[in-house]
Amino acid sequence: MPKVSIEQLIDKNKKDIIDDYFTFLKYPSISSEPEYKKEVLACALWLRDYLKKLRFHVELWPTEGHPTIFASNLDAGPEKPTLLIYNHYDVQPVDPIEKWHSPPFTPTVAKGAVYARGAQDNKGQCFYVLQALKLLLKRDGALPINVKWCIDGEEEIGSPGLSTLLPKKHKELRADYLAVIDLGLRNVKVPAVTLGVRGIVTMDVELTGGTTDLHSGTHGGIAYNPNHALVELLASLRDSKGRVTVPGFYDDVSVLSKKDKELLAFDFDADQFAKDTGAEPLGGEQQFTPLERAWTRPTLEINGISGGYAGAGFKTVIPAVASAKISCRVVPDQDPEQIGKLVANHLKKAAPKGMKVSVHLHPGAGKAARASLKSKIVQATAEAYEEVFQKPCEYIFEGGSIPIAPALAKASQSEMVLFGLGASSDLIHAPNEHFSIDRIEKGIRIITRLLELLS
Amino acid sequence: MPKVSIEQLIDKNKKDIIDDYFTFLKYPSISSEPEYKKEVLACALWLRDYLKKLRFHVELWPTEGHPTIFASNLDAGPEKPTLLIYNHYDVQPVDPIEKWHSPPFTPTVAKGAVYARGAQDNKGQCFYVLQALKLLLKRDGALPINVKWCIDGEEEIGSPGLSTLLPKKHKELRADYLAVIDLGLRNVKVPAVTLGVRGIVTMDVELTGGTTDLHSGTHGGIAYNPNHALVELLASLRDSKGRVTVPGFYDDVSVLSKKDKELLAFDFDADQFAKDTGAEPLGGEQQFTPLERAWTRPTLEINGISGGYAGAGFKTVIPAVASAKISCRVVPDQDPEQIGKLVANHLKKAAPKGMKVSVHLHPGAGKAARASLKSKIVQATAEAYEEVFQKPCEYIFEGGSIPIAPALAKASQSEMVLFGLGASSDLIHAPNEHFSIDRIEKGIRIITRLLELLS
Repeated sequence: MPKVSIEQLIDKNKKDIIDDYFTFLKYPSISSEPEYKKEVLACALWLRDYLKKLRFHVELWPTEGHPTIFASNLDAGPEKPTLLIYNHYDVQPVDPIEKWHSPPFTPTVAKGAVYARGAQDNKGQCFYVLQALKLLLKRDGALPINVKWCIDGEEEIGSPGLSTLLPKKHKELRADYLAVIDLGLRNVKVPAVTLGVRGIVTMDVELTGGTTDLHSGTHGGIAYNPNHALVELLASLRDSKGRVTVPGFYDDVSVLSKKDKELLAFDFDADQFAKDTGAEPLGGEQQFTPLERAWTRPTLEINGISGGYAGAGFKTVIPAVASAKISCRVVPDQDPEQIGKLVANHLKKAAPKGMKVSVHLHPGAGKAARASLKSKIVQATAEAYEEVFQKPCEYIFEGGSIPIAPALAKASQSEMVLFGLGASSDLIHAPNEHFSIDRIEKGIRIITRLLELLS
Repeated sequence: MPKVSIEQLIDKNKKDIIDDYFTFLKYPSISSEPEYKKEVLACALWLRDYLKKLRFHVELWPTEGHPTIFASNLDAGPEKPTLLIYNHYDVQPVDPIEKWHSPPFTPTVAKGAVYARGAQDNKGQCFYVLQALKLLLKRDGALPINVKWCIDGEEEIGSPGLSTLLPKKHKELRADYLAVIDLGLRNVKVPAVTLGVRGIVTMDVELTGGTTDLHSGTHGGIAYNPNHALVELLASLRDSKGRVTVPGFYDDVSVLSKKDKELLAFDFDADQFAKDTGAEPLGGEQQFTPLERAWTRPTLEINGISGGYAGAGFKTVIPAVASAKISCRVVPDQDPEQIGKLVANHLKKAAPKGMKVSVHLHPGAGKAARASLKSKIVQATAEAYEEVFQKPCEYIFEGGSIPIAPALAKASQSEMVLFGLGASSDLIHAPNEHFSIDRIEKGIRIITRLLELLS
């Protein structure tokens, strides 16, 4: 009797798949906000129990923050290769909450897509892996290769716990291949494998002008307003061409190979970008193309700025303190911690007289990662994508960061591939994040095919 | 039988005075926050009932926002002059609430001072007027002159309601003298009458870069971050010497008379300023002295700035929108509405490509006000201060604004004086606002003496 196809199994189990996906999305597993600690754990326990039912061996690796889930099914035996998969079950905060059209933890379907925080990043992408493994086990009673799965609970805060665990867990993590499934496509109709992600370092900057807020009438003209000092200081971080002015910032940026430059030579679709974001591609260093800027150049972005009274009405105040949150994306050969220190030192040095500047570098800085185009895992992934999409696969880069990826490749001594089914219009990290049900199904098919191709 | 002195009456009624003061302070009469509308009204009704018990004729003048209280006692008769007094019963918001050592609407005594929002500005100063009138009526059964009293419920939002009422109420308001009692002293041990206040105009600025928040990894380097556009735009509003760069901003600034310059020639006490504020006097135009900057020069201050994620942890976001709240203080001969338009136009013109800029000018802009040194009301006030303090009176200016003051002087056709017992260390508009009980007592004595001197 011929095997039932995965497509048929997906069709048959569609209701269960959607139900389980929704259950997963309902956990508000926001790793960055301490008040959600319990909910993050509840989400981990749900995944653990789900995997246990599939007869995976499952461990919760405790960390100082949220646990990492480590699951394995090594029944294929030592003759077969081992694939280590990386996903994460934590999600971003939901602010500004008022911009959501439906509650972020009440999954809602509209036009074939599911709207919820994490619908794509990364619960959606984690979920199609889970369903691929479930359906393969259901149909065949076994997986074609050995599978290890690391599901991080702290990716959105830079994976501090898993980073610390890596040196202790290298035996458990040992694998032939590593698939980091937290990426996307350039165009949802075109298959793509990602050859690189940028690294990241983040920091808080605080300017203190005095010991108390002051009246901007009585003291305006005498007291130096930290809001003014902050805008002056932050404005000085980039020049009129979008180039970061911090001395040494670009020193270690690697020059692109000819091959990489060819890979980047896509036409950037400004119309699609405008449709997705309502914006023109005017950010970053003007001397580079938009894709070069997002994929191969480091950035410095102000992610948050705050000082004085910003509520309804007006308050005539000179605040004691003004602050900002800054992140830098780094590219291969740049050390993110070093970049963080350069920016911090520059901010302290450039601080105007009368202002106390403090910079707090967050833990969890991560390097950029690169996959090898010629590796077996990259080639097999591309083949799986091509079969499912019925189109030639693109090789792309991603501007975002998966700080744990290069560290995980090193600890597991494996060849890495980065991929996923995200689209720039999914609004990850933003209000109304969503993911299409069609891509959940494609994901299941790609993962099952990849496992078969590696066997 | 000789009259009981006001000092004796204060001593005798001390408990009642403090109790009533606390009751007044407990109303969270925050005029700028719509959710406090009921509490503002409750505060107005308390004052109305208090004044009715003193047999004042009291009216609540309704406005689109909070009512103005208008009270009068004209029993002295047409032979005696009429003094119009101005105070306000509304207060500033309380953010940042976490910086208060005691709840802002639970008055708390420490070291002879009462801590509460409004303890000084302006409930404290309104309250000593109330007690002066009460004690005079208690002792003498009548007031030595005719008194009209306008207690504003919207001073902290620029008195929009009372401004609108003025043309309709000029008969009711008609007076010989106007005492605007919302000012302070340069030094709490030295009596002072204020000869001028600055005017004000306030606005909200919003920069929109796209239709949604974006991921700063995926889009960082492509999307133009409104936080960066905002800091660049705001930083361009002042030059390195603290001078406002908006074209035309200084065009109508009046040149100081020799007399005014003499009055300003106090030594600025930088040590006291540092003690009160934890800051050095480094704000504003460097070519002027601190007192010139606060008293006679216009300013542009960023009172609030906000964009992206500013909570606990970190969010790698490029926000769709970044915004700021800006106020300008203006000096005589400047038209605040014109200054607001100049700034708004400049912001729109200077906005970087790709950013939509909207500027909302708040209603309630008010001109600067000046009192005449030679007027009877200024001289009588100075004499009352000198008697109570037993020291020569200073003549000073104030950097803050009372937008309604010049309009009220015009509507009432009266000679204006500006005074009060505030100190720069009172932390008005800031956490831990306070006012000393000693100054409540001095205030009662000054008001009673002023009424006698005018009779």
